[in-house]
Amino acid sequence: MPSVVDSSVQQFQTCINACNQCMQACEECLTSCFKEPDVQARAHCINMLRDCADICAMASQWMSRGSMYGKQFCQLCATICDDCATECEKFQDAHCQECAKFCRQCAEECRKMAS
Amino acid sequence: MPSVVDSSVQQFQTCINACNQCMQACEECLTSCFKEPDVQARAHCINMLRDCADICAMASQWMSRGSMYGKQFCQLCATICDDCATECEKFQDAHCQECAKFCRQCAEECRKMAS
Amino acid sequence: MPSVVDSSVQQFQTCINACNQCMQACEECLTSCFKEPDVQARAHCINMLRDCADICAMASQWMSRGSMYGKQFCQLCATICDDCATECEKFQDAHCQECAKFCRQCAEECRKMAS
Amino acid sequence: MPSVVDSSVQQFQTCINACNQCMQACEECLTSCFKEPDVQARAHCINMLRDCADICAMASQWMSRGSMYGKQFCQLCATICDDCATECEKFQDAHCQECAKFCRQCAEECRKMAS
Repeated sequence: MPSVVDSSVQQFQTCINACNQCMQACEECLTSCFKEPDVQARAHCINMLRDCADICAMASQWMSRGSMYGKQFCQLCATICDDCATECEKFQDAHCQECAKFCRQCAEECRKMAS
Repeated sequence: MPSVVDSSVQQFQTCINACNQCMQACEECLTSCFKEPDVQARAHCINMLRDCADICAMASQWMSRGSMYGKQFCQLCATICDDCATECEKFQDAHCQECAKFCRQCAEECRKMAS
Repeated sequence: MPSVVDSSVQQFQTCINACNQCMQACEECLTSCFKEPDVQARAHCINMLRDCADICAMASQWMSRGSMYGKQFCQLCATICDDCATECEKFQDAHCQECAKFCRQCAEECRKMAS
Repeated sequence: MPSVVDSSVQQFQTCINACNQCMQACEECLTSCFKEPDVQARAHCINMLRDCADICAMASQWMSRGSMYGKQFCQLCATICDDCATECEKFQDAHCQECAKFCRQCAEECRKMAS
């Protein structure tokens, strides 16, 4: 991972990594949900995954730049990650169960960042 | 890193990681460039960094979802990463020199992906 | 619409507007597709809409900043918009038919920009 | 503008347009700020513009999809737009003065959306 700037960015590294992983898990899970036979029951989950992937990607980018809104952004990101995890946990397939774990992990790191 | 879906995503992992790292390096470098005394000489470099950070972020997100445009997107990403590296290499400060390395690495992985 | 900078941005305004409209149409259409009874038959269309919405959003942002990669980005955007239109045209509901029109319009403006 | 889905999207149209315009004004203003002789005095303004452009772009995309987080996202967007306007108003050049107006307008529409 880049470590070229200063400590204010370094302290964000764990959270940046969690956001990158959560973004990836959500995008993967979204693609997989479309292929499930019960895709119609997943409309809410799918909409959560779209938002969660996007906000994690932007949180990662804003922390990288040392945005002064990093905390506020991470606070909203934590809320969305937790909601997305709750929704994914309802489905028994491997991709939703795995995605929920990455969402919970990201929510935890974002809450630390926001505090 | 998430590994929940299928091999088509797994083969992208090295490139996804390189894009995440390059995005971060570019955002960090951009923030640092604004603080340099010769910031006016860096206008072109700064504009490269904006585009490079954005395209790396999106390339990472598109590979994660298994987009059918992954190759074409990575091809453009490789071009921009190489151009950004060339520009960053002109400046002697640590953040530009480091950023250039991440850009070259990302360009190489994106070219593999695009081939 | 903002008109504060210079002619190089002004000449992009028609294309920026087309990209904004296409992004919106794709996001709306995506949300609507999830609610359709034949959502499983729409997996490819849905994946096209995700990519098309994202690339239109970024094309609009890059043209606004006067990116030197505007043309190359618009060329890829045109390809994706045309593919997305072709896919949406296969479905008879109003949102897909409307979305296809915005995609075609955006593809045309992006091709002009790229030429 | 697309009008294919439902009233929940239609009510967002004024705010979507304001976000699109503000994103564009911020990107244009950012590019112009780099060319100003006092660019070093603009570091904080420039960092505001980066965040403001990004959050407006995402707010527009999320409203288009009818995200359940539209209100919360618009609330944060309003805060950032107002802060960006305050910063831009400090500079007398046309692009900053114009950009501040678009930021204020967007903040107002986002606050209506969030209420």
